[in-house]
This record gives sequence, C-alpha cells and structure tokens, in this order.
Amino acid sequence: MSDAAENETPQDAPYETLGEIGLNNFAPYLMNRIMGRYNADMQGALKDMNLSTVKMRTLSILAVVPGLTINELAVYAVTEQSTMSRTLEALESAGFVRRTERASDGRVREIYLTDEGRVEIDRVWPVMWNGYQSMREGIDPAEWQQFVSILQRVLRNVRQNEF
Amino acid sequence: MSDAAENETPQDAPYETLGEIGLNNFAPYLMNRIMGRYNADMQGALKDMNLSTVKMRTLSILAVVPGLTINELAVYAVTEQSTMSRTLEALESAGFVRRTERASDGRVREIYLTDEGRVEIDRVWPVMWNGYQSMREGIDPAEWQQFVSILQRVLRNVRQNEF
Repeated sequence: MSDAAENETPQDAPYETLGEIGLNNFAPYLMNRIMGRYNADMQGALKDMNLSTVKMRTLSILAVVPGLTINELAVYAVTEQSTMSRTLEALESAGFVRRTERASDGRVREIYLTDEGRVEIDRVWPVMWNGYQSMREGIDPAEWQQFVSILQRVLRNVRQNEF
Repeated sequence: MSDAAENETPQDAPYETLGEIGLNNFAPYLMNRIMGRYNADMQGALKDMNLSTVKMRTLSILAVVPGLTINELAVYAVTEQSTMSRTLEALESAGFVRRTERASDGRVREIYLTDEGRVEIDRVWPVMWNGYQSMREGIDPAEWQQFVSILQRVLRNVRQNEF
C-alpha cells in the first residue's frame, strides 16, 4: 500500500494545479482572451455599420444554414432565446429575414434570409473576414486545419445540443 | 491581362465566403460556441459555491501571477476595468486579496492573494479542473499541446496589450 503511494504518478493525482499547468497553457484562459478581443473588435467595427454582434451572427449563420428555428439560432449564435427573439423581430422589420411554416409541421417556424438580408451580410462579411485573417496570420494552412479539427472535438465534448 | 484574370486562383480573390469556409470550420464560431458553453457551465457550478465568474478568474489569476495591477487584472480576466474595480473591493472586504504599494513606485498598487484567498481558490479549483478535463476528453496530450501552442499564437495575433 505504501509502495503504491510512493509510486504515485501525476496521472494518479486527483488534479494538477493551475500553477503546474501554467496560465498561458490553460486553454480556457487563452480562448476567453482571444474571443474577448475578437468580439470587442467586431463590435467596434460593426458599430460603424449600424449592426450589433448578435445581428451579424444571425445573418451570417442564416446565410449558410437556411431554415433554422429560433431555438437552433439561439444555440448557434451563443445567445439567450429572449435576445434572439428580439433580434429576429428587428431583422424582420428591417426586411432582412422572413419566417415560414415548416411544410412537415405547421407549428414550427423556419427562418430564412431575404434578398435584402443577403445583400446586408455581403456588406458586413469583409469585416468578419478581416478579423478572421488577423487571427490566422503566420500560421500555415495545415497547422490551422489541425487546430480547427481539435476545436470541433472540444465543441463535441462540451456541447449539450446535438448540433 | 485577360490571361491573368482567367488564371485567377482562390489565393488572389479578396476573400473566401463563409459558405466556402463552412460554419463548422470557422474558428471564431467554434471558439464562441465552446466558451459560451464552458462559461455557462462554470457560472452554474460556481453559483452553488457563492462565487461569480469574474471573482473566480481574479482569484485563480492572482494565485499564479501575484502582484498584478488592476489594469493588468482586467485584461487577464477579460473584463471591464469598472467591473474589476468592484470585484476587487468585494474580494478585499471578504479578506481574499490585499493591495500594497509597489516598492519602486508608490503610485502603483499591486494586488496579492491573502492566505484566506488561497484557501478559497483551492476550494474552487476542482470545479475549473473538471470543466477543463471535459474539454480535453479523448484528445491525446501531444495533440492538445499542439492545439495550445496555436491558441498562444492566435492570442499574440489579436491582443492589443503586451501581456
């Protein structure tokens, strides 16, 4: 028994401390710092274009995944359902999205971009693209692809929804 | 001239669209989803322990980087200076941190954990560790280290501060 204790390896320990890991090696810290900066930069750039972060996310998501429901959009855009509800009302009033009943189930409302909504996201996309390019600067495409594949696995590990 | 246009490659294009990249390959989207879930999970777990996310971040950062100023702490914890100011007042009242004048410059206040603060972060760390372990599940240590090194480069690309 005492032998086992003496041979205890880090793997057997209940956990490493943050001091052992190191703040700059702690992925949640790094991702919070990165996304805090990225989101603040986006917010600043979009303000000049009269668009909020949530509106920008909603339009860009609908541009590539048409026909989502409000619940799905809230998850994709990482926002509260109540915020998404207000956002969609504003986008609908502006003529950027429309809602239609799902053919197979009339109780479900699917949300789509209008032509005007597509023009709007095309206007805003260069701002998002610039932020994305800043992130990737100096990182070669193969390394970046490996990085993205780990992000996909981390999202599968932490998410509670099936999408 | 027309030859050049015909030979135009994607590299020459001003940008790829989000549809070309793919939402699930767009790193800012993936990181927002991951950190939205991780931060909500932490907030839920910490609520039972009577601690806010910002307090948890502040204590854990000070545990490994003692003597930071309020400005530095606001950057590290990804929070507004006004929020950090209120957070430090609350943590000081609770006896978890203390402020002292910097030896080399009395106008600068450095912030340190007290012994009670260290006990508090030790109490909370297992919650953070569990969230961290959930993220890493099934990803081998070498891949994870590679992932962390890309995160470090992305942070250097986007940050505005020298730390």
